[in-house]
Amino acid sequence: MQLITIDDIEAAAARIGDRIVRTPLLPCLWASYDVGADRPLWLKPEQLQPIGAFKIRGAANAIGRLPDEVRTRGVVAYSSGNHAQAVAYVARTYGIPATIVVTTNTPGVKVDATRRHGAEVLIVPPEDRESAAEEVVAKGGGTLIPPFDHPDVIAGQGTIGLEIAADLPDVEVVLVPVSGAGLISGVAAAIKAKAPHAKVIGVEPELAGDTAEGFRTGQRPDWSTEDRARTIADGLRSTPSELTFAHVRKFVDDVVTVTEDQIRDAIGLLATRSQVIAEPSGAVTTAAYLHADLPKGKTVAVLSGGNIDPALLAEILMP
Amino acid sequence: MQLITIDDIEAAAARIGDRIVRTPLLPCLWASYDVGADRPLWLKPEQLQPIGAFKIRGAANAIGRLPDEVRTRGVVAYSSGNHAQAVAYVARTYGIPATIVVTTNTPGVKVDATRRHGAEVLIVPPEDRESAAEEVVAKGGGTLIPPFDHPDVIAGQGTIGLEIAADLPDVEVVLVPVSGAGLISGVAAAIKAKAPHAKVIGVEPELAGDTAEGFRTGQRPDWSTEDRARTIADGLRSTPSELTFAHVRKFVDDVVTVTEDQIRDAIGLLATRSQVIAEPSGAVTTAAYLHADLPKGKTVAVLSGGNIDPALLAEILMP
Repeated sequence: MQLITIDDIEAAAARIGDRIVRTPLLPCLWASYDVGADRPLWLKPEQLQPIGAFKIRGAANAIGRLPDEVRTRGVVAYSSGNHAQAVAYVARTYGIPATIVVTTNTPGVKVDATRRHGAEVLIVPPEDRESAAEEVVAKGGGTLIPPFDHPDVIAGQGTIGLEIAADLPDVEVVLVPVSGAGLISGVAAAIKAKAPHAKVIGVEPELAGDTAEGFRTGQRPDWSTEDRARTIADGLRSTPSELTFAHVRKFVDDVVTVTEDQIRDAIGLLATRSQVIAEPSGAVTTAAYLHADLPKGKTVAVLSGGNIDPALLAEILMP
Repeated sequence: MQLITIDDIEAAAARIGDRIVRTPLLPCLWASYDVGADRPLWLKPEQLQPIGAFKIRGAANAIGRLPDEVRTRGVVAYSSGNHAQAVAYVARTYGIPATIVVTTNTPGVKVDATRRHGAEVLIVPPEDRESAAEEVVAKGGGTLIPPFDHPDVIAGQGTIGLEIAADLPDVEVVLVPVSGAGLISGVAAAIKAKAPHAKVIGVEPELAGDTAEGFRTGQRPDWSTEDRARTIADGLRSTPSELTFAHVRKFVDDVVTVTEDQIRDAIGLLATRSQVIAEPSGAVTTAAYLHADLPKGKTVAVLSGGNIDPALLAEILMP
C-alpha cells in the first residue's frame, strides 16, 4: 500500500497556507509545574482554526488538489461533525458549491453552523447517509471529500506535524487523538521525517479504544459502532481504514487510552489554567499527559478542536 | 513629554521574542457573516500568552532592559491582576527573585497562581500596597516594575501592534481595551508607524469610561476609584497616567464605550462561536465591534486576556 510521504505533506503546507491559521505552540505552565521539569508541555491549539478544528487542513488540501474544472462543479461530504463545517468553509473560500449530507439526529446547531458557511444541507435518516451523498455525486453535484480515508486528507492533517517540528525541533513526545486515524497518520509521517527521534503516541478514550487494541494485536480493529459511541468524545468514534491503519503500523510508537473522567478533568484544567476551550476529543491528549504512562521529554499535545456543547463546558466549570 | 517611538517598539520585539507567544490573527467568521462583508473581523488572541494575558510583553521588555547587575537583584510589583503574574513569570524565565505585593482582598486563586511561578507574595491591607512595595525596593529587594506608567512597558505592549501590521498590512480599524492605557499607547504608536491609514479606537466599559470622557474634553480624567470599580471588567478599572494620556491624545482616533450586558454577551459569543476564552476586559473590543458606531473596513479586535472566574464563564454559558 502506498503511504504518504513528506513531499506530499510539504506540498500540502504550501497549498493550504492561505486558508488556515498557522497555530503557535503554547507553553503549558501549570502542567509543567505540576508534572515536573523533565516533561515540559506545549499545546498545539487547532481549535483556533476558522471552524474550530484541525479538519480544515485536510479538506483544504483535498479540495485544493482537485483540477480547476472538477472543483468548479462543487464538493460533497457526509458528516455530522467538524469535517462537514471544514468542507463547507473551504468551498466558500473557493467560491464553489458544497452539499453536506447530515442525518436526522444531527443537532440543529451543527446544521445551522454548516448552513452559515453557505453550504446546502441535506437531512436524511442515518442509514441513508452514504447513499444520499453518492446520489448527489452521481447527479453531478461535485466530488466527494472523505473525512479521513484519503491520501490528500492525510497529507493536509500532516501539516500539523511539520509545524510542530519547525517550532520545536527537539520535541521528544507528540500526543495525537485517534479516531479514523487520518490526523495521526499525517502527523506521524511528518514527525518521523522531520524529528525522527520523537515518539508519536496516539490517544483514545478507553470506551473507543479500538485502535489501541489493534495496535497491540497488529490487526485492524473491528469494534461495533455502538461500542465506539459510548464515549463522550464524539469526534473519536470512527475506526481506522486500511490506509490509515497502515500509517499507524508504520509511523506510530504507541496508542494509549484515557477514561471519561480524565477527559472531563482535562477540559476543566485547559479552560481554567490555559484559557483554551477543548472539545472532549481535543482534551484526550492532555488527559494522557497527566495520567498515562508516557516517555519523558519535551511533549506536544495536539488539541484537535474546541467545538464543545456550551452546556457541557458550563457543567464542568461550575464550582 | 517624550513619547515612545517605533524604534523602541521594534527593539522590544527583538528583546522579548523568546519569552512570549507570537499570537496569530484569528479570522472570526460568525462576526463577519453576521455584521457584513464590509467589516471582516480578526481577533488578536493575547489570552494565549503563558500567563493568559498581554501583560507579559511589557513586563518582559521592562525586565529585559534592566542592566544585568540590577536585574540579578530581582524585581518587585504591586498588582492583584495579570501584571503580577506577568512579572512573576518573566522573573522565573530569567532565574531572578520576584516579590509581588497583593492586598488582603485579592482572591486566593490569584495569590496561588502568582506563587506557582515562584514569586514571593506579600499580602498587605489595600492602603499599604504602594508603601509596602517601596519598602521592599528600599531594602534592596529589586527594581519596581510598574503595570503601565513606564516607557519600557508601553513599548513591550506595542509589539502587539507590530504583529498586527505585519500579519494584516491593510488593516483599517484596530480596537484596543483601555484601562491605564499602556496597551493602547504602545499599539497605537506601532500602528500609526506601520499602518498609518488604520484607525486605532479605544474601548472602555461605560461604567469605567473615564478615558472616553477625557478624550472628548482633552483633559486627563479624574474619576474616583469607586466609580471605576463598578464594571465587571476588573482589568479596566485603572486610569491613564500623564504619560499614557499623552500617547492617547497623539495616536488614538476615538474611544468608545460598551455596556455590561454587551460585555457578557461578547464573552458567550467568543466561547461558543470562536472557541476562545475572554475575560470581561478582553471581550470589550468584540462587544464594541458588534454594538458601537465604528468605521467600516478590515477590523482587528485585541482580545487582551482570558483570566475569567470559571463560575462567571459557566453562568454565561448555561443555556
